[in-house]
Amino acid sequence: MKKVAVIMGSDSDFPLVEPAIKQLKSLGIPVEVHVMSAHRTPAKACEFAAKARTDGFGVIIAAAGKAAHLAGVLAAHTTLPVIGIPIKSSTLDGLDALLSTVQMPSGIPVATVAIDGAENAAILAAQILGVHDESLAAILLQMKSEMERKVGEKDAAIQEKV
Amino acid sequence: MKKVAVIMGSDSDFPLVEPAIKQLKSLGIPVEVHVMSAHRTPAKACEFAAKARTDGFGVIIAAAGKAAHLAGVLAAHTTLPVIGIPIKSSTLDGLDALLSTVQMPSGIPVATVAIDGAENAAILAAQILGVHDESLAAILLQMKSEMERKVGEKDAAIQEKV
Amino acid sequence: MKKVAVIMGSDSDFPLVEPAIKQLKSLGIPVEVHVMSAHRTPAKACEFAAKARTDGFGVIIAAAGKAAHLAGVLAAHTTLPVIGIPIKSSTLDGLDALLSTVQMPSGIPVATVAIDGAENAAILAAQILGVHDESLAAILLQMKSEMERKVGEKDAAIQEKV
Amino acid sequence: MKKVAVIMGSDSDFPLVEPAIKQLKSLGIPVEVHVMSAHRTPAKACEFAAKARTDGFGVIIAAAGKAAHLAGVLAAHTTLPVIGIPIKSSTLDGLDALLSTVQMPSGIPVATVAIDGAENAAILAAQILGVHDESLAAILLQMKSEMERKVGEKDAAIQEKV
Amino acid sequence: MKKVAVIMGSDSDFPLVEPAIKQLKSLGIPVEVHVMSAHRTPAKACEFAAKARTDGFGVIIAAAGKAAHLAGVLAAHTTLPVIGIPIKSSTLDGLDALLSTVQMPSGIPVATVAIDGAENAAILAAQILGVHDESLAAILLQMKSEMERKVGEKDAAIQEKV
Amino acid sequence: MKKVAVIMGSDSDFPLVEPAIKQLKSLGIPVEVHVMSAHRTPAKACEFAAKARTDGFGVIIAAAGKAAHLAGVLAAHTTLPVIGIPIKSSTLDGLDALLSTVQMPSGIPVATVAIDGAENAAILAAQILGVHDESLAAILLQMKSEMERKVGEKDAAIQEKV
Amino acid sequence: MKKVAVIMGSDSDFPLVEPAIKQLKSLGIPVEVHVMSAHRTPAKACEFAAKARTDGFGVIIAAAGKAAHLAGVLAAHTTLPVIGIPIKSSTLDGLDALLSTVQMPSGIPVATVAIDGAENAAILAAQILGVHDESLAAILLQMKSEMERKVGEKDAAIQEKV
Amino acid sequence: MKKVAVIMGSDSDFPLVEPAIKQLKSLGIPVEVHVMSAHRTPAKACEFAAKARTDGFGVIIAAAGKAAHLAGVLAAHTTLPVIGIPIKSSTLDGLDALLSTVQMPSGIPVATVAIDGAENAAILAAQILGVHDESLAAILLQMKSEMERKVGEKDAAIQEKV
Repeated sequence: MKKVAVIMGSDSDFPLVEPAIKQLKSLGIPVEVHVMSAHRTPAKACEFAAKARTDGFGVIIAAAGKAAHLAGVLAAHTTLPVIGIPIKSSTLDGLDALLSTVQMPSGIPVATVAIDGAENAAILAAQILGVHDESLAAILLQMKSEMERKVGEKDAAIQEKV
Repeated sequence: MKKVAVIMGSDSDFPLVEPAIKQLKSLGIPVEVHVMSAHRTPAKACEFAAKARTDGFGVIIAAAGKAAHLAGVLAAHTTLPVIGIPIKSSTLDGLDALLSTVQMPSGIPVATVAIDGAENAAILAAQILGVHDESLAAILLQMKSEMERKVGEKDAAIQEKV
Repeated sequence: MKKVAVIMGSDSDFPLVEPAIKQLKSLGIPVEVHVMSAHRTPAKACEFAAKARTDGFGVIIAAAGKAAHLAGVLAAHTTLPVIGIPIKSSTLDGLDALLSTVQMPSGIPVATVAIDGAENAAILAAQILGVHDESLAAILLQMKSEMERKVGEKDAAIQEKV
Repeated sequence: MKKVAVIMGSDSDFPLVEPAIKQLKSLGIPVEVHVMSAHRTPAKACEFAAKARTDGFGVIIAAAGKAAHLAGVLAAHTTLPVIGIPIKSSTLDGLDALLSTVQMPSGIPVATVAIDGAENAAILAAQILGVHDESLAAILLQMKSEMERKVGEKDAAIQEKV
Repeated sequence: MKKVAVIMGSDSDFPLVEPAIKQLKSLGIPVEVHVMSAHRTPAKACEFAAKARTDGFGVIIAAAGKAAHLAGVLAAHTTLPVIGIPIKSSTLDGLDALLSTVQMPSGIPVATVAIDGAENAAILAAQILGVHDESLAAILLQMKSEMERKVGEKDAAIQEKV
Repeated sequence: MKKVAVIMGSDSDFPLVEPAIKQLKSLGIPVEVHVMSAHRTPAKACEFAAKARTDGFGVIIAAAGKAAHLAGVLAAHTTLPVIGIPIKSSTLDGLDALLSTVQMPSGIPVATVAIDGAENAAILAAQILGVHDESLAAILLQMKSEMERKVGEKDAAIQEKV
Repeated sequence: MKKVAVIMGSDSDFPLVEPAIKQLKSLGIPVEVHVMSAHRTPAKACEFAAKARTDGFGVIIAAAGKAAHLAGVLAAHTTLPVIGIPIKSSTLDGLDALLSTVQMPSGIPVATVAIDGAENAAILAAQILGVHDESLAAILLQMKSEMERKVGEKDAAIQEKV
Repeated sequence: MKKVAVIMGSDSDFPLVEPAIKQLKSLGIPVEVHVMSAHRTPAKACEFAAKARTDGFGVIIAAAGKAAHLAGVLAAHTTLPVIGIPIKSSTLDGLDALLSTVQMPSGIPVATVAIDGAENAAILAAQILGVHDESLAAILLQMKSEMERKVGEKDAAIQEKV
């Protein structure tokens, strides 16, 4: 199976990014994690993205805050889909990171998920890999049913409270 | 090759969505276009999404404005990746559509592109299909080179102006 | 008397939604509470809304955060008035939920109250039921007088402080 | 049948408010229209709201821009449901009117619709009157079907274009 | 000397409003404090404003949060200058209160100060009374010098730190 | 009677500021108009403010756009009330000018009116002068009645339209 | 004298960037203009920045819209000061470009000027070069006097109008 | 070597400004620190800026919150580059300070860094001084390498965690 790369701009973002890593692992998807910065290690980041496809990656997830350029810079160097997680890491509620990630110019898309939305980034990566992988698709379908079942349980439980 | 569905919430959004359709066609990707609304034809939209994988689709692109629920509603009914295009169709510059599309709860991601970013939605769809399709990946790489060449031409041209 | 349904997208929103339930009960209005999600249990939510009128409901209150689609999805399946409570549950102060709830397209209104405005959602539901219910209207009028009286008391009390 | 009052803060808002009046009339609901201002004719506005129920009104719709206090001031003087239409009439895209209308304090709700959402205000008023009026509810259901049918037609039509 | 009225919409705002009261007292300006609500005690608020001039007031200060209508409603009933203090009392950082206070329609101004800017509201009231009161103007000038002196002291103090 | 100074940061703002000048003149208030910039002619602006009281001014109105420092800079040099008109003159809808004008630090208030709210700035200046001027207060009261009468006329006129 | 580079992300931004070029030329500063994109020609942009100092540049000005990464990417590859001009080129008033340009992480500053503020970018570049260039500093001082004189003329001219 | 001035509007901003001072010192750049206010000590601030060049300064850094006029006021009185640090010191996340600092009118630029971005202000000042100072440029280049090395270490360290 193709690997998913999870890149974060700063290791201080690790707690917010960790749910993506856990979710990918629980779905049985091989994952490689890196700290790389669009601004502090630009060469390394560019090189990683440029070689990602031949290195066996299928999707790149990039998490960054503030003027979050990481996902965009990686996307500039690959034809793989790049998923951007805007991280709230400034005083501005993550709106700066959201706009810096999603408002990409024509030609270089970044698939943006919610602010601090690491878990969804992982699920989206799985959906992408699942387009051509029926068994992964089946796992995702089962996850959907499980979510549905849990909400049903919570609905039952809340009847006790009210 | 798997098909891409392009769904718009209102046919008035067609001019903004058309670049996605053209881009997909120019990449040789089969595309099916629909007007469906999360609010006016919810049953049809849900059914479409639920059957999309077995109907041969690989990616769903959904474009909607204001309280843009379309992408999210489709994503609730499929394990295929759903790409959301927030459309500026209210007085609010598209910020309402952006937040309604991107801020999805855990479990149901929407791969959001820029406001009115139809062309990038198409390229992202192609990148997703290209994860397991080397010839599509090659076309995307060529498109990247072409973009690079054109910027180079513009750089040369601007030397005349200044 | 017709019932009011209080639907929340996640049971983690219960503390913010509870004031609506309490207010409805204190006004003597029968209330039914559910956890249902526009994205995780869409079929259940749609079915509930579609049957709400014949099931004896007069108003549906829906509370959700982030890309808050719940109220809109319910409104798509009923001709009953649907009241939306945008919940602050992301980094964005509830603005995402407010816009996702209020900016509905023509044809499918959602009666939106303030962010985290559960108590007002209940009062609005009571006002709606009170349009054709003189005794409920009388209770609401009395509540208004009571509010006025309390502000008067606070005005008197503050004279001690200054 | 109970009447619906449509109040606008300024007659310059008439073109934006007119769709509400037309929609109400087309639904067979008696409507009374007034220009009244929370700031320029406060006494008149307060008196109107205070007497609205006994004057045969079931719902009040109020449209105002900028620091849109009209709906809130009317709501302070009645136990009828008050629907607020925030009007874009400043440089600020209507966000000022939206927040001034929707962010009401506990005790005095305003049922807020989208910025410039006059048509939805009318439909919401009809839904409120329809809670206890089966024939009006039937008309609303038919309107919903009609909307659905029209989207279907547009879906068919767009197949010609692509 | 004319009195200054300090009106707050809710007694929970008292801690934020208190600096205005203290500042006015320290400037020797007679002050009267009230809890009155544009929505819960509208009649009382209107009557207070309508009689304020003849009751010996020169300026009205009004503090309110969320859809902060209080200052505007008071201004509608008097020709005295009304100063509005937008209070942060919702999830929205006070932006709702700021826009609801400052974006008044033509004809009814509210002199708006910063969010939670109670002290400045008091100084502005003093400046207004000081237009025709040379001794109050002299006190304000002295206060300005005092501020200047204190900043000078802090500048000296910071030399120790760096 | 004391004079009102109307200062604008750029003569390109004149059309937006002119309603203030006209309103002041129509109220019989002597007015002096200047183009002065906090950034381009800071010395002149500071000197004007510093001498304004002894030069016979009672109120200063300052209009500026973008990082609108003009009102604040003038306020720093006088104990007269300074009214700020935030002007929309950038791409940002005037929100930059509003925040730059209203969010003043403790000690130096600016009485801020709505974005592009020149007419209200003039009325507020008149209200300030009217605190100690019964005949001006009477004119303002008459203006209020006139506004009320005009809204009444518009209310009558709209009955023809609907 | 060291050169100033003016880089724009797209040649469609040329009309907004041109004032910077003209201003630099009128100040006698050698200027080199390029179209380079952080996303479409990343290698070229990085290389340009990396060699800029040895190529005789003293300052780099970068103009870009939307998720404006250009200035940040250039800054990552040089120790020269990089000035960022956020360009309004999306539906969002330039706020996306402003935040993407200014909210840089620690270590890699971008000297950001106003949205569409090309002229100021040029003046700032001149100020930077003028730190160690007395004759350029003298020209800038003269420009300041000239601005002051022109505002004075406009102040005189406006006396005719009012 | 030319000195850098670090001016803060209030000594309460010292903890946020201190990283700039430390960074400058660690780079061997002479620094002078002052508390000066655009509003409370305008004369002192203007005089400081006017004499800064002849007093041996090469760059001025100004930090202020809310309606942050300090950098702009200083810039009005000097031809030295002025770097503005918007400080979050109100309820508004620093957006008020950012817009008040960056949205300067043509002719008077302020080189704005991120909200609370003191460290970057210092680095930018060093870059400016380094334009004509090869040894300082070398130190900055080394700092860049050091940053790169540290990110590499963190990348290695995170491999242990996942």
